[in-house]
Amino acid sequence: MLDPVQNPQLNADGELHHLLSLDALPRGIIERILSTADSFISVGSREVKSVPLLRGRSVFNLFFENSTRTRTTFEIAAKRLSADVFNLNIASSSAAKGESLLDTINNLTAMQADLFVVRHSQGGAPHLIAGHVSPHVHVINAGDGRHSHPTRHYKRDFSALSVAVVGDILHSRVARSDLHALRALGVPDVRAVGPLTLLPDGLDSLGVRVFTSLEKGLAGVDVVIMLRLQNERMNGALLPSASEYFRKYGLTPEALRAAKPDCIVMHPGPMNRGVEIDSRVADGAHSVILPQVTFGIAVRMAVLSIAASSARFR
Amino acid sequence: MLDPVQNPQLNADGELHHLLSLDALPRGIIERILSTADSFISVGSREVKSVPLLRGRSVFNLFFENSTRTRTTFEIAAKRLSADVFNLNIASSSAAKGESLLDTINNLTAMQADLFVVRHSQGGAPHLIAGHVSPHVHVINAGDGRHSHPTRHYKRDFSALSVAVVGDILHSRVARSDLHALRALGVPDVRAVGPLTLLPDGLDSLGVRVFTSLEKGLAGVDVVIMLRLQNERMNGALLPSASEYFRKYGLTPEALRAAKPDCIVMHPGPMNRGVEIDSRVADGAHSVILPQVTFGIAVRMAVLSIAASSARFR
Amino acid sequence: MLDPVQNPQLNADGELHHLLSLDALPRGIIERILSTADSFISVGSREVKSVPLLRGRSVFNLFFENSTRTRTTFEIAAKRLSADVFNLNIASSSAAKGESLLDTINNLTAMQADLFVVRHSQGGAPHLIAGHVSPHVHVINAGDGRHSHPTRHYKRDFSALSVAVVGDILHSRVARSDLHALRALGVPDVRAVGPLTLLPDGLDSLGVRVFTSLEKGLAGVDVVIMLRLQNERMNGALLPSASEYFRKYGLTPEALRAAKPDCIVMHPGPMNRGVEIDSRVADGAHSVILPQVTFGIAVRMAVLSIAASSARFR
Repeated sequence: MLDPVQNPQLNADGELHHLLSLDALPRGIIERILSTADSFISVGSREVKSVPLLRGRSVFNLFFENSTRTRTTFEIAAKRLSADVFNLNIASSSAAKGESLLDTINNLTAMQADLFVVRHSQGGAPHLIAGHVSPHVHVINAGDGRHSHPTRHYKRDFSALSVAVVGDILHSRVARSDLHALRALGVPDVRAVGPLTLLPDGLDSLGVRVFTSLEKGLAGVDVVIMLRLQNERMNGALLPSASEYFRKYGLTPEALRAAKPDCIVMHPGPMNRGVEIDSRVADGAHSVILPQVTFGIAVRMAVLSIAASSARFR
Repeated sequence: MLDPVQNPQLNADGELHHLLSLDALPRGIIERILSTADSFISVGSREVKSVPLLRGRSVFNLFFENSTRTRTTFEIAAKRLSADVFNLNIASSSAAKGESLLDTINNLTAMQADLFVVRHSQGGAPHLIAGHVSPHVHVINAGDGRHSHPTRHYKRDFSALSVAVVGDILHSRVARSDLHALRALGVPDVRAVGPLTLLPDGLDSLGVRVFTSLEKGLAGVDVVIMLRLQNERMNGALLPSASEYFRKYGLTPEALRAAKPDCIVMHPGPMNRGVEIDSRVADGAHSVILPQVTFGIAVRMAVLSIAASSARFR
Repeated sequence: MLDPVQNPQLNADGELHHLLSLDALPRGIIERILSTADSFISVGSREVKSVPLLRGRSVFNLFFENSTRTRTTFEIAAKRLSADVFNLNIASSSAAKGESLLDTINNLTAMQADLFVVRHSQGGAPHLIAGHVSPHVHVINAGDGRHSHPTRHYKRDFSALSVAVVGDILHSRVARSDLHALRALGVPDVRAVGPLTLLPDGLDSLGVRVFTSLEKGLAGVDVVIMLRLQNERMNGALLPSASEYFRKYGLTPEALRAAKPDCIVMHPGPMNRGVEIDSRVADGAHSVILPQVTFGIAVRMAVLSIAASSARFR
């Protein structure tokens, strides 16, 4: 039985049952996801890229907002685990007929779903769904947690690490989830860097240091996590212009000199080259932006298989 | 060889070859579908939800009108039978290039299709296709026959049953197909309930009793099958308004008191809560609306596998 | 290692690594594709239509322009080889977010793709992608080469063959690719037939004879390859009207009398009946238009499996 008072993501044995947000996960669970992901990295480079862990299970990709890339990575992860995958673009479907979200979920559950991967513009939707489904069904929030695994891969010891997250943290769930996960995994120096208009309140209480100067924010860091600047932010009052942003916060080779010589650079993609990142950095020696994608598949395989296995023994 | 003079759905041995409409199926075939479906219900609740009956076969989902839910249930059914499934949204495809329906079918047949699942706004399209395909290809009308199986599951003995179908029977192929199947399976008391503007002619000749009063129509019934009220009906001359409809034909707990105490309530979905059905009934003790969805997958697995097997021995 | 100076489609051992265009392929490779395709034809007519050659491999169908039919044939070919297939409609995806083509390809490669099937309105796109991907990844141009295989199936000896390609050769990559492949395979008499406004320059240098008269162009030929007339051509200065085109270049039974009595007729589909082809020919005894579709799947299986196997031993 799930105990929602404790943590809606864990079952009574403290195992991962849903993945709704890294924000509330204990360190042990995050570390189990990362080490399981390690074991899946080799699967993708084999000729036969599949393992039978989810054979015959039904994974429903529920996309309430369009995101071909995220959908594809989960579809790949699920198929490499040998699951049957069903893609549903919900916006064009039942919602158009006026059916409520919970009726839609009830219907899909009655089709004997095992896992729902949910991408919704409202952060609370996956929580709502998880609170509603049958005990044997698992809900995975598709929008969360992409940087911890590459960080650990390249910088094994977290206990002396400096990490800077740069850009539009205010509008990025991924960024806030990263900040939490890095702190939870024991990173002592986590920094948020950007213009004040794009930084949320309450970063202090997470133990995150705030910088509005890129140079100061990057000083001596081991890891730089760049965020994508949504174009729609640039037309509003929040930002003057793309070129002005690039001049102050764009990651150029010159700006990167403030960081450690062996620092790594990440970006969740898709990149706006020339806006938040210079091509010489994106394609340069410090960039681990493409390995991130590879690791992302492995992390998703880990999350799906760990969540699915929690039901077996309940 | 098929004998179109007899029944275009059956082969010379009287076996199911296409499923175009329940209306013309002999009782023995309907009963075989239902009992085969019984055997598939357990597949969906197993951890490995697949059986190898259609392994290596090609099932083409041909959707000439959009219906994510119906497409998904057939995709699930076919994949749980281990078939390869190809989804084609025909409206956005060849039809746009001016190709005729039969040229499209010929092309897909030449790709060595085994089964076509067809959803088309014109009821005759699946028949047209079935009359045209090669002898080894099977055509399944995706729009048909969803209520017989749950009825039999909950009320095993049909010989003393009262069933009411409530709502827009005029515009519902599913409803007319249900009325036929229930009569064919030996249900002695089948009723159509609704405003006269939504009831078709000729119900008498099917042995169906017509009621315009919900209370009288539900009196003493064992099974209530609610129909979805299409919103577009409400703007025309056929109906005054949604609230007026709900007042007269909406299934509330109070209205349901006229039925037997152990009656069951079905609905093909998606529901218009507060229009044709009250949430207290939809989510109440009499409702078998969600089990219907589960049974629907099993029925589709049964239809696909029975039709596909008819070719093997010809 | 690939040697781009030699031929970007071949690896150092002269094996097929990418299929970008038949235009530049040596005869031996084309013949290997055709004979491998022969061996796959029987797979499609078996009950279990799959072979395990690409089991666990990831094939990405990248469609930058919509083409349901082409996408479906590659999806079928890849699934019959037991590959995992991922369909990406790129126009609606990352491109909309301003990401460059090469960033998209880099991302998908990082998801550990094995093969990209590419359909792009610009002929050079597959070449660009092939020049950019990792050495173990294969690129297949989805828009190429559909008539050689049926030709060889029906007319085994190419050394005394006459083949006419009729219609809009100017706007058809397929047609130009056909002309090359037929010449490369040793067909001595290859003809291009159509109005001068729809014939490209340089056909002479390919060894192709040009005819503006349908009757003269078809005189004594063994094979007629009709091309689809794009509707948009008819509104411009290139052509007077559809009926005028049909009168001069439409393939009627009467026009076909000029060809050999055992000639075969092909068409890439979808057909414009009554524009470039008469229904009596399309559905007549000389037509091999539907077998072409069947062979097309086998050719695609051959191309995918041959390209994929070239990596194994490198």
